[in-house]
Amino acid sequence: METVQVQLPSHTIAPYSVRVGAGQLGEIGPTLRTDLDARTCVIITDSNVAPLYLARTAASLEGVDIRVLAAQFAAGEAAKNLRTVGELYDNLLPRRLDRNAVIIALGGGVAGDLAGFIAATLLRGLPFVQAPTTLLAAVDASVGGKVGIDHAAGKNLIGAFHQPRLVITDLATFKTLPRREIACGLAECVKHAFIRDGALLSFIETRLDSLISCDPVTMEKLVAWNVQIKAEIVEMDPYEKNQRAWLNFGHTFGHALETVGQYHALQHGEAVALGMVAAARLSEKRLGLNSAITARLIALLDRIGLPTRLPGLDAGAIFNAMKTDKKNRDGALRLVLLADIARPEIISDVPAEQVFQAIESLNVTETATGH
Amino acid sequence: METVQVQLPSHTIAPYSVRVGAGQLGEIGPTLRTDLDARTCVIITDSNVAPLYLARTAASLEGVDIRVLAAQFAAGEAAKNLRTVGELYDNLLPRRLDRNAVIIALGGGVAGDLAGFIAATLLRGLPFVQAPTTLLAAVDASVGGKVGIDHAAGKNLIGAFHQPRLVITDLATFKTLPRREIACGLAECVKHAFIRDGALLSFIETRLDSLISCDPVTMEKLVAWNVQIKAEIVEMDPYEKNQRAWLNFGHTFGHALETVGQYHALQHGEAVALGMVAAARLSEKRLGLNSAITARLIALLDRIGLPTRLPGLDAGAIFNAMKTDKKNRDGALRLVLLADIARPEIISDVPAEQVFQAIESLNVTETATGH
Repeated sequence: METVQVQLPSHTIAPYSVRVGAGQLGEIGPTLRTDLDARTCVIITDSNVAPLYLARTAASLEGVDIRVLAAQFAAGEAAKNLRTVGELYDNLLPRRLDRNAVIIALGGGVAGDLAGFIAATLLRGLPFVQAPTTLLAAVDASVGGKVGIDHAAGKNLIGAFHQPRLVITDLATFKTLPRREIACGLAECVKHAFIRDGALLSFIETRLDSLISCDPVTMEKLVAWNVQIKAEIVEMDPYEKNQRAWLNFGHTFGHALETVGQYHALQHGEAVALGMVAAARLSEKRLGLNSAITARLIALLDRIGLPTRLPGLDAGAIFNAMKTDKKNRDGALRLVLLADIARPEIISDVPAEQVFQAIESLNVTETATGH
Repeated sequence: METVQVQLPSHTIAPYSVRVGAGQLGEIGPTLRTDLDARTCVIITDSNVAPLYLARTAASLEGVDIRVLAAQFAAGEAAKNLRTVGELYDNLLPRRLDRNAVIIALGGGVAGDLAGFIAATLLRGLPFVQAPTTLLAAVDASVGGKVGIDHAAGKNLIGAFHQPRLVITDLATFKTLPRREIACGLAECVKHAFIRDGALLSFIETRLDSLISCDPVTMEKLVAWNVQIKAEIVEMDPYEKNQRAWLNFGHTFGHALETVGQYHALQHGEAVALGMVAAARLSEKRLGLNSAITARLIALLDRIGLPTRLPGLDAGAIFNAMKTDKKNRDGALRLVLLADIARPEIISDVPAEQVFQAIESLNVTETATGH
């Protein structure tokens, strides 16, 4: 088991631990009793995860005399909206919770975002524990306190910053993940490597086969390393005024791809992979990034099984969607670009023409790229 | 004009000013331009306040080239719910706000709570300005960052802590308040006096006629003094883990009175007045409060025109409602009682019988109390 500490620059937000190891869900009861003095817990999970891990989690909590309530929602991003939030309030509020009740998000990123929003807003804020069951949620959304829901006008437009009191990642849960889901988690690890740490990049390149097969030792190292990187960035800038925006490398393009209706088949990690390729190409033009680094990014994404081109894309629609990104300021597009590996910059004055070309660069067939 | 500074113990929450004076709404544009560098503002107000003050507020903002959006909701506590929140999201999100857009709550406590919840959750948090137009909101809800909405299961059960960046109280708006609304504002001032400051108590007793007629100089002093007291308590304990609970003096009883259906005719300040009387009587039993202090409280509330008895009340229903208060911990009722003026204590072990008797003590007719 590895533990990473997260300590934000605030007197009023408690430092928290991220525990990473195989079998951690079986220890969640004693951990919450000891670390948080929990008496009542509410497990919020989805219809995919509940049959796999809810009973085990509840049993561990009840084993140390913690009262357990559970609430489920339909699995999938489509549930991450205000209606589900209203249903969860209606379910939970009549059950006489008090401000010591701990909300546990059990599942992937949707469970974390949704349960975190409930925790942020129920009784003006309840203690919150993330128990991610996907690689993507473990290395990204479970750390840093971003919680929220989607709106018809865009993803994650409603939300809050609400830090967890504890993050418990049971690596054993990754064994039930589809190959595609592992690839999506690796997309965020690749992002962390490119914005922050060349050694992590080499590690992923070298150990890729062990990672894809979820070898426990290699996976534990990967998750702890990525959590450490994310924690450092969040500690510098909890509310995303400066450095935290680095984490959006590939995401402004990626979110636009997810928003434009015709690409709904893309998963988040896949959209981010495409977004990183576009951002790298734009970085070559704008910051002089060496094209060999773009090639190294594309080669790794290809090996992972993530998309790096999108033949037939509608660059105009994607560009328009980027203009509504909530990280823009006073109408100007803000993009994270790279001068080199581990040298991100936040750029607000990229000409529209160059952004458009970077999107269009994804619109190539296999033949055109020489494969 | 008087200004009170609020500085919370956090590196990540900006200190803010509370500006109190007649005519402040006419200055809101230059103030927001200078202090917050505002470019876009969203005024959220209700159907009572809009015809009175919306045009003046918008004109001041537009006069310094700030883009103004406005959203209205139906006046009254009944609008403070998730449905109105959903309508405001639907109204505002398609209008391409970014994270620099400033949300302005223009109105009483409901506008502040509702607009504050929108500010806390839109794009994970927008800068927020309180412009209270009632005495009650000016001395209480506009300072301290509590925002939220009601649920069928109880008042304010959904919400957040989201500090304003600025509070602008235009005392001229109090002139349009009904007499009963002024009395409700004074209830919270009396509360501040009893939990914290005997000199304020004497001030209210001595200047009551000037206060009821909204004499500008006296009112400015009252509001600034109360804001100062509230700010000091919030600075000690922003998230209500300890001292901030003092502010609930009279409120656990009061909220229960508001919750129990048959007393919906009571306004918040009136319920708090009754709650303070019950809490004072219980304080006599539990902490040896001098009964002359209870008598002084009752005499002042009577002069203000606030209720101090409730003939025919259903003590059992009120007691049950108190048990669902969100400030209870692990099932134990938490009450703020007084050992003396300015000596509040938070008590968790009051026997149910004594609480019941304190409620029942309000159930007296005029004859029985000798009036």
